[in-house]
Amino acid sequence: MSDLPKTMCAFRVQNGALKQITAPLPKLRRGWALVRMRLAGICNTDVEILRGYHGFHGIPGHEFVGEVADVAGVAPAVKKAWIGKRVVGGINISCVSLGFQPVCSFCKRGLKTHCARRTVLGILGHDGAFAEYLSLPLVNLHKLPDKIHDDRAVFVEPLAAACEILIQVDVSKFRGAAVLGDGKLAQLIARVLRTKLPRVVMYGKHSQKLLLARPAGIEIRKIHGDDRDHTKLRDSCALVIEATGSPSGLRLALEMTEPRGTLVLKSTFHGAAPVETWPIVVKELNLIGSRCGPFREAISQLKSGKVDPTPLITKTLRLDQATEAICSAQEVGVMKVVLKNE
Amino acid sequence: MSDLPKTMCAFRVQNGALKQITAPLPKLRRGWALVRMRLAGICNTDVEILRGYHGFHGIPGHEFVGEVADVAGVAPAVKKAWIGKRVVGGINISCVSLGFQPVCSFCKRGLKTHCARRTVLGILGHDGAFAEYLSLPLVNLHKLPDKIHDDRAVFVEPLAAACEILIQVDVSKFRGAAVLGDGKLAQLIARVLRTKLPRVVMYGKHSQKLLLARPAGIEIRKIHGDDRDHTKLRDSCALVIEATGSPSGLRLALEMTEPRGTLVLKSTFHGAAPVETWPIVVKELNLIGSRCGPFREAISQLKSGKVDPTPLITKTLRLDQATEAICSAQEVGVMKVVLKNE
Repeated sequence: MSDLPKTMCAFRVQNGALKQITAPLPKLRRGWALVRMRLAGICNTDVEILRGYHGFHGIPGHEFVGEVADVAGVAPAVKKAWIGKRVVGGINISCVSLGFQPVCSFCKRGLKTHCARRTVLGILGHDGAFAEYLSLPLVNLHKLPDKIHDDRAVFVEPLAAACEILIQVDVSKFRGAAVLGDGKLAQLIARVLRTKLPRVVMYGKHSQKLLLARPAGIEIRKIHGDDRDHTKLRDSCALVIEATGSPSGLRLALEMTEPRGTLVLKSTFHGAAPVETWPIVVKELNLIGSRCGPFREAISQLKSGKVDPTPLITKTLRLDQATEAICSAQEVGVMKVVLKNE
Repeated sequence: MSDLPKTMCAFRVQNGALKQITAPLPKLRRGWALVRMRLAGICNTDVEILRGYHGFHGIPGHEFVGEVADVAGVAPAVKKAWIGKRVVGGINISCVSLGFQPVCSFCKRGLKTHCARRTVLGILGHDGAFAEYLSLPLVNLHKLPDKIHDDRAVFVEPLAAACEILIQVDVSKFRGAAVLGDGKLAQLIARVLRTKLPRVVMYGKHSQKLLLARPAGIEIRKIHGDDRDHTKLRDSCALVIEATGSPSGLRLALEMTEPRGTLVLKSTFHGAAPVETWPIVVKELNLIGSRCGPFREAISQLKSGKVDPTPLITKTLRLDQATEAICSAQEVGVMKVVLKNE
């Protein structure tokens, strides 16, 4: 593609901050696409990465909507079908796409998100979306319907992570759910569960964040520091989602989950949390770790309008303001901060 | 029953030890049985109780085989059918048996072992089997076939706990299992799993204990302190059972369980263990807490001879030696210590 620049503006992790760099455009393997970033969302995982999570020192960013700028090593008709298309992309790049032989046992079983040799966009061994361009295998990309505007599409990745719960848990067996946490992911999870359950209660510490959930038909409960520390809260639920992003959230979740209940863990904070594990045994709880999810389901939820994540956007900044943006994302009361590649 | 004594020898928890007392015989509710203890097993939970677990200060002991000495408030024919029968008994006494009204939501759903108001034999609010007599509701009792001698029958309760895993997990989906721990419960779990799976590997720190498992067709791996602390062990498995009874066991279990794998938690040690929870999320593990299990299945396993727990008995002492016995049960290398009511 002659109209592509040779270098791009990008941000990489350096000394706990995002540092602007001029980088060459990502090189493409056969069957890979170059994607021009349009919007990129800042996730708590990006903040964790600044703090050393996964020891990642490349370009972070794994939530994005972009348009295909180039495709390598495919037939002209295939390439033509992709160029210019608005896309979102699965972040796990499996050994199949990386050219490893033999294919690992997880990929053979269709568990590509658990590929033993995977790289992960902006998280593990592969540069991400806090840049003008990123690269992904075509198999990871999903074309977007025109109906889903960029400000919704940028939520597909975290929304898919929320939708993963619907695959892992038969929520129709439950009369309601408790979502612990009032942050970005918790908000999406509560909205997704509310599409399937008559009652979803969100527990959080921040009144302003909690209030964002109410118009989506979600009940809200403010919890105070001592509820967490001394478990004064007497609520219980057979289905609890832990999405606080903090160690104390797990303790509260174990407390709240009813005997034989299901507790879905979504928080990926680093560091060891002191946990009393005997309640898991005595109550015979089922704990389910839940990570990346189905993009198709997330796109479908956005297309139908069942879930509207746009009230979660606190601010949109230009890509060249990424350093400021990720600082802002850590401020109290700030929800989703989005970077725009103008 | 005119031939029953008025008092009995029993042992209660006092200052972290078992103290011999002379106690009145347990009073019976309608539909309850008085059971003369024949053998009682000492479990790690009994040791935990001495250390303050559940704040229990009554008579411990929840593993027993006995014979029915009296039944209260039933028709003479019913009573006759029970008197003198050799029995084992489920340890959870639900609100139905305790006369509470209304019946709790768990009992209504058939989850009697999770009854919100339950007492538990020798563990919670109800005196146990370290005594000449104990009481239980008839509905908790299971008559024993003559074929199952006392030294096997005394294992029904922990063996049922091992069998609970077969109800909670469809083990036929797995090619093998890793059992972490070489103690009493781990040994029973490994034997039960081995009846269903071609390969069961037991990981433990004690050569002598591990060797007990080998004749049952169980592979053994000795783990060293630094395997636990620095995870030098590179083994992994899709089905892992944590039955070490120690906090470090959970860390190793999380390490060893493959992505999308199942980790059954059986240890009920008290105290908070520092746990990194992100591997649960990133690997999308399924953690299943597992406690009491089906007596019928355990009796069936013993009757068929598929599982022989008798090699696990290190020593049998008289009931009046209970103080010495529970000390002995805590010694390195000692497996099951059994009390005999002669």
